Amino acid sequence: MKLRHAAASPFVRKVMVVAHEHGLADRVELVPTTVSPVQANESLAPENPLMKVPSLTTDDGQVLFDSPVICEYLDSLAGGGKLFPASGAARWNALRQQALGDGILDALILCRYETTRPEDRRWAGWTDGQMKKAHQGLATAEREDLSGPRTIGHVTLGCTLGYLDFRFPNDGWRQRHPRLAAWYREAEQLPSMQATKPPAS
Amino acid sequence: MKLRHAAASPFVRKVMVVAHEHGLADRVELVPTTVSPVQANESLAPENPLMKVPSLTTDDGQVLFDSPVICEYLDSLAGGGKLFPASGAARWNALRQQALGDGILDALILCRYETTRPEDRRWAGWTDGQMKKAHQGLATAEREDLSGPRTIGHVTLGCTLGYLDFRFPNDGWRQRHPRLAAWYREAEQLPSMQATKPPAS
Repeated sequence: MKLRHAAASPFVRKVMVVAHEHGLADRVELVPTTVSPVQANESLAPENPLMKVPSLTTDDGQVLFDSPVICEYLDSLAGGGKLFPASGAARWNALRQQALGDGILDALILCRYETTRPEDRRWAGWTDGQMKKAHQGLATAEREDLSGPRTIGHVTLGCTLGYLDFRFPNDGWRQRHPRLAAWYREAEQLPSMQATKPPAS
Repeated sequence: MKLRHAAASPFVRKVMVVAHEHGLADRVELVPTTVSPVQANESLAPENPLMKVPSLTTDDGQVLFDSPVICEYLDSLAGGGKLFPASGAARWNALRQQALGDGILDALILCRYETTRPEDRRWAGWTDGQMKKAHQGLATAEREDLSGPRTIGHVTLGCTLGYLDFRFPNDGWRQRHPRLAAWYREAEQLPSMQATKPPAS
C-alpha cells in the first residue's frame, strides 16, 4: 500500500496510529506529500482530485480517502470490528466520537489556513466562528465516556489533542478540561501515538 | 428521531434521501435549523457542538453527526448492508464515492462562505483553490462506474450535482461531463430525489 503522507497532518496521523496498532505499518509505503488549499499539487491530483492527505493506494490499485474510510479499511485488513465496532450502540458511539474529533480538527485547520491569506484578506469573524466550534467540541469531549475498549473515537480524539498542542500550544485546553487532560496523559504514551508524533514545529 | 434540518443543505438532503429510500421518512421529525460559520446557533450547540446540520437525535437520545454516520445509522435501521455494502470491494468503493461527493461539496460550500465575508476580506486565491478541487472531483466522478446497485456513493453524487445546479447554476458541468449528465438525468427522477429537492433559490 502507498500512503500520501504529511507528518504534520492529524488526519494522516489517525491512519498511521491505526496502522501501528494493527501491525500494518511495515506494509504502508509513505510518500511525502505537500498540500495547500491554494496551491494545487499536480502530482497528487490524478490519485485524489481533492488534493488532500491522507490518500491510500491499496495493493489492488484503488485509491481511498478520506481518513475515516482509510482507517476502516485498515481495520478490515486486521480482521474488522476492532477499532470500528461492527454494529450497535458501540459502533455509533465510536463513529460519533470520530466525527467530533474530525470536526474539531476541520475547524482548527480552517483557522490555520486563515493565517496563510494575504494579511488584509483575513477576517477575525471567520476565525472566531471556527474557534468557537473547536472549543465547544472540546467541551463535549470533556464529557464523553472514554472508559471502554479503544476505538477509532479514542484514536481521533488523541490525534485532535496532539494537533492542538502542536499548532495551538497556548490554547490552555488542559486547564479547561481536566478529565480530558487526565485521559490524554495516558493515551499519548501509547506506542502508536509515540511513533506518530508531529515534527517539532 | 429528530433531525436538525435545513432544506438547502446537501448533507441534510443525503440523510433525507436515505430516509425516503428506506421508508423511514415518517419516523424523522424535522426541526428547521439555521446555521452559519460565523453566527453561533445557541439552540443547536448543546446537541451538536460543531453547530452543523444534519444532526440526528435517535430515539435513545444519542446525537449523531455528521452525514456519513447518520446515513449509515439509518441504513442499519433498515436492516443494514443496503446503501452501505457490508464488506469487501463494494463497501470501499461506495465509501470512496461518498467521500468524493462530500469533498466536492465541502469545496463548493467554502466558495459560498467566501461570499458571506465583508467584501474587502474576500480572496480570489481561496475561491480558485477550492473550485479547482470541486472541478477535479467532478472530472473524477465522470469516470466512475455508476452502473452497479445503488449505494451511498450514488446518493451522495446525486446530492452533489443537485447542489451544483442549486447554488452554481452557471457552472456548465453537463457540457464538460456528458456521462455524468446522462446518469443524473435518470437519478434525479427517483422519488427520493424528487421529495428532497432544494427550495427555489
